[in-house]
Amino acid sequence: MPDTILDDISHRRYNPLTDSWLLVSPHRTKRPWQGQQESASVTTLPEYDPKCYLCPGNPRAAGDKNPNYDKTFAFVNDYSAVKEQQPEYEVSQSSDDLESLLLRAQGVKGVCYVLTFSPKHNTTLADMPAQDILPTIDHWTRLYANHLSPSNPLSEVAAKLQLSISREEAPIPKDNYRYMQIFENKGAVMGCSNPHPHCQAWTTSTMPEEPGKELTQMTKYRQKHGRHLLADYVKLELEKGERVLWQNASFVVVCPWWAVWPFEVLILPKRHIRALVDFTADERLQLAEAIQEVTRRYDNLFETHFPYSSGIHQAPLDGTPEEIENAYFHMHFYPPLLRSATVKKFLVGFELMAEPQRDITPEQATARLRACDGQLYRNKLS
Amino acid sequence: MPDTILDDISHRRYNPLTDSWLLVSPHRTKRPWQGQQESASVTTLPEYDPKCYLCPGNPRAAGDKNPNYDKTFAFVNDYSAVKEQQPEYEVSQSSDDLESLLLRAQGVKGVCYVLTFSPKHNTTLADMPAQDILPTIDHWTRLYANHLSPSNPLSEVAAKLQLSISREEAPIPKDNYRYMQIFENKGAVMGCSNPHPHCQAWTTSTMPEEPGKELTQMTKYRQKHGRHLLADYVKLELEKGERVLWQNASFVVVCPWWAVWPFEVLILPKRHIRALVDFTADERLQLAEAIQEVTRRYDNLFETHFPYSSGIHQAPLDGTPEEIENAYFHMHFYPPLLRSATVKKFLVGFELMAEPQRDITPEQATARLRACDGQLYRNKLS
Ligand SMILES: O=P(O)(O)O[C@H]1O[C@H](CO)[C@@H](O)[C@H](O)[C@H]1O
Ligand SMILES: O=P(O)(O)O[C@H]1O[C@H](CO)[C@@H](O)[C@H](O)[C@H]1O
Repeated sequence: MPDTILDDISHRRYNPLTDSWLLVSPHRTKRPWQGQQESASVTTLPEYDPKCYLCPGNPRAAGDKNPNYDKTFAFVNDYSAVKEQQPEYEVSQSSDDLESLLLRAQGVKGVCYVLTFSPKHNTTLADMPAQDILPTIDHWTRLYANHLSPSNPLSEVAAKLQLSISREEAPIPKDNYRYMQIFENKGAVMGCSNPHPHCQAWTTSTMPEEPGKELTQMTKYRQKHGRHLLADYVKLELEKGERVLWQNASFVVVCPWWAVWPFEVLILPKRHIRALVDFTADERLQLAEAIQEVTRRYDNLFETHFPYSSGIHQAPLDGTPEEIENAYFHMHFYPPLLRSATVKKFLVGFELMAEPQRDITPEQATARLRACDGQLYRNKLS
Repeated sequence: MPDTILDDISHRRYNPLTDSWLLVSPHRTKRPWQGQQESASVTTLPEYDPKCYLCPGNPRAAGDKNPNYDKTFAFVNDYSAVKEQQPEYEVSQSSDDLESLLLRAQGVKGVCYVLTFSPKHNTTLADMPAQDILPTIDHWTRLYANHLSPSNPLSEVAAKLQLSISREEAPIPKDNYRYMQIFENKGAVMGCSNPHPHCQAWTTSTMPEEPGKELTQMTKYRQKHGRHLLADYVKLELEKGERVLWQNASFVVVCPWWAVWPFEVLILPKRHIRALVDFTADERLQLAEAIQEVTRRYDNLFETHFPYSSGIHQAPLDGTPEEIENAYFHMHFYPPLLRSATVKKFLVGFELMAEPQRDITPEQATARLRACDGQLYRNKLS
């Protein structure tokens, strides 16, 4: 295999999803670390915290009270980054004056939801069996379904969904939006200010940069090769094997060829799925299983509550039939830790100014995460 | 002025240098912060630290000993991310098999330099008068000049340089490279592991992503409008005024329209400068003055050693005459702090998965930094 040389030399790898390169320097972890140490996360939390604004029955910032939910619960963020109502911003139409060339802006409307994974304040996805993660995936699916524009071909699929969560339990928007970004910030290092297990879903009237870039790339690839970029990638990774961390019948989990973060992971469905609503009930359970595998291995790697940001990319809520068809569901995990529970990889000067740089290869990361199989370390100790 | 509405509504702004958008949510700083606090940086350091590998006369990791330098000192990083010598990576030439489409790589060679700003372990750019920052700018200029490819039109300019630093004091490469990225990581929060004031310069055989994107955008703009993008931007910002933080005869400092980081700053020369070697001696001193203004105001803002990553973008070391001509020198500052000396802005879930998001407007940031004029807070106290 000619690629083993890449374990020894500095090189760049290409990310076909975003059309960008990153620098890989496999030897660089040899450098001693005398810099900042993160504090390892608190592990002794109560199952219910009367001061937590996400625990069942507790009051929130704007005065609302959470219901006594027993699985998941979604509400509109009291400090949303986008709102359903605001004045329109009129863009001046003159085309060649400097201002309209160089000071461009557009208004953005939308809704920011918070969604809890569990009523238990002190649990995490890594602690939850797949069966208990399923209600979250069902809730994501219903939330996404509720926000589909009526003209989206996926709304027909959504109409036939059989879900444990009712249409009413997931918030319903006042308007049509373009995209829904579902993401989780896990751990204080990743800007999470409340350990109660939860994620967010921000819908926006505009297509955000990252999924926009990916959709453009997927579209170009399909126009050129007649196949889906990520379908081809799944096929290739299953053949090659060295970046495959885990798989079940419907999903494969890889440290992608183009990973930027030290232990970055990508969950991919084996068949073409455009968005959450395309999954069967069994596939949703298998996705829960994949998420449980990733988060448990993460925690086992450095025997800590492993921080990360994760996010789902899928078809837009509103778009041309081609865009919807070209989308290929996937879930990214970007974890900052590199060497231990307290030493992270800093994406700073060179990375921000020039190009992302990583210190271990994705193949080495895969091997390490494969070895983190088995029971969650916290349960072994007790 | 129609733009004042942007102080109140969520909107996107366009960055013409990188052809990308970011989300601005001016109201979001109202949310209370219960998340991670950074530790404020240590302020009591000795002027000389016998254990520091950057102090004059001290030994380094690989066994070399630093000279007893009195201004600046540059050497090749003992743990470089790229190297001058390594085996070649042969890319397979088949054009349509999945592997060459989806697992693309290329070898990267280069040199990583470390450059100290001062022999004093306990000083920072904010503490140094412009006159004392000048030797660093001279050193950057000589380092860049030494690495210019002979075919670069700028090498003729470089040959005529009058510099206080000799050709021998700045390292000389074994090979031709494509780009030199000069950057500083300041503060532990930005991954800096040694407080001794220093920056880095990484030269690479490939064009890194960020300056590559910018050069493409500058080239397109010039082809379309016959003028330099950043020359137009300087003109416009000087006319409008609301994002101008400070200026002298040769430079203007702005919080750019498209700033992502809360107090992001851009230093721009008022005339078209392709690279460091284009500056006159007087302009180099004026650049030192601009850097001193930015770093002092930063420290004054939250009365702390303000962390940031900064970096210079300029003409490539090697490139077509058009590329060299289209380049427009500028210096970025990306500081993470948002609310205080210990609360930073987290660019995490939504930002990584969807789109950068900021909480205060660049105009508000400009007003705050303008008000941080005057003596360095540390000197006032003593
Ligand atoms: O080179 P240093 O200071 O050892 O390391 C620091 O800057 C580098 C360049 O931005 C980063 O790759 C590292 O993650 C960071 O810790
Ligand atoms: O929404 P939260 O959890 O209050 O805030 C966190 O996630 C947001 C979305 O990634 C970021 O914009 C914030 O900087 C971060 O602190």
